[in-house]
Amino acid sequence: MATPANSSTFSGDVWAELRLADASDVPHIHALIHQMAEFELLTDLFAATHELLTSTLFPSPSRPPFTSFTALILDISPSPLPASASASSIASHRLDLSASPLADPEAAAFASPRGGGRVTAGFVICFPNYSTFLSKPGLYVEDIFVRAPWRRHGLGRMMLSAVAGKAAELGMGRVEWCVLDWNKNAIDFYEGMGAEVLPQWRICRLTGAALDKYKGNHEEGGKAAE
Amino acid sequence: MATPANSSTFSGDVWAELRLADASDVPHIHALIHQMAEFELLTDLFAATHELLTSTLFPSPSRPPFTSFTALILDISPSPLPASASASSIASHRLDLSASPLADPEAAAFASPRGGGRVTAGFVICFPNYSTFLSKPGLYVEDIFVRAPWRRHGLGRMMLSAVAGKAAELGMGRVEWCVLDWNKNAIDFYEGMGAEVLPQWRICRLTGAALDKYKGNHEEGGKAAE
Repeated sequence: MATPANSSTFSGDVWAELRLADASDVPHIHALIHQMAEFELLTDLFAATHELLTSTLFPSPSRPPFTSFTALILDISPSPLPASASASSIASHRLDLSASPLADPEAAAFASPRGGGRVTAGFVICFPNYSTFLSKPGLYVEDIFVRAPWRRHGLGRMMLSAVAGKAAELGMGRVEWCVLDWNKNAIDFYEGMGAEVLPQWRICRLTGAALDKYKGNHEEGGKAAE
Repeated sequence: MATPANSSTFSGDVWAELRLADASDVPHIHALIHQMAEFELLTDLFAATHELLTSTLFPSPSRPPFTSFTALILDISPSPLPASASASSIASHRLDLSASPLADPEAAAFASPRGGGRVTAGFVICFPNYSTFLSKPGLYVEDIFVRAPWRRHGLGRMMLSAVAGKAAELGMGRVEWCVLDWNKNAIDFYEGMGAEVLPQWRICRLTGAALDKYKGNHEEGGKAAE
């Protein structure tokens, strides 16, 4: 079967690795966020740039992972991963594609900066949140995304399991994320992983001009002792 | 009118100050979280301790405010605040109680560690969150609480306005928090402040035993390259 130009077909065993991202991953992270915005029909909210992503996700000096905004990259390798995992490796998983080869039309565009014929297939952004009732930190998963050709191979589960495992190892109290209420497949999947979907809480958001009007708000929030 | 033992009655002008908390505020923060759990009928989830609050909110070395978990205290002062605001001051507000004196039955129990006849009347816990679409940090308000006698005096608005003002000054993209869908008064109040309540997003939570089972999960999240 012919595959599009720039496409690569993966077959047999391939190896998925979830690893800490670094600044060299920013172009792919940017492109993945845009794909996610398209998937969610929210491209009107998309305002990410390479510069902002670099300065906010990879500041200097760097911070230990999971103590602030943390980006993880899902790479697919056509060859086995080194026996000794690198310091940036979070989790790995072998995929058996022998029954059905997988064509990735964007393999060239998403060539991993790590080389070795790897392609970047997804990402996670998470950061610590805090529960006052537990008086413990947790992890909030802002985004978890897998490119279309790589879905339905257990990679979302692998990524969320790895984040949950990291939170548990760090002694954190919980892992949280959001789901759209009409996304029944996602809800079933998350519940199957042991999560509860909280029915009563709603997110309130102050943004754009409505937020800016509080800048230097001396009427309500000023420091004048009067 | 007689007031209970330990009660203080406030009248005329009093001054509310929102300030950065420090470790000396932990006993009051703990008691306020417990009052909040009672208010929300969620005392079964209350597991905060002085030790955990101290180590998670006031670690050593300390972090700049609003770059990690940040606790703010609302103090009420019977005398004017110093003309030059202290470094820990976030916002202040004069309350005119001349029309109706205010009895605080717990004034003695909530004497502020800052002295000067101040009483602690509320708190805020917030921390940075992250929007990938904006590729900018924001602030998430985990809790905002005012003790019962001090409600309906604009202090909740002052506190939320101050947090929003701080986020805007820091160049952050948004401020978010949660509300219970049946709490119409709160929803009306937040919408009046310019917030939108997102109807479709639901929070997913993995906690307790369901989270612990991911600890060292080598089936899905292990590092074995197989």
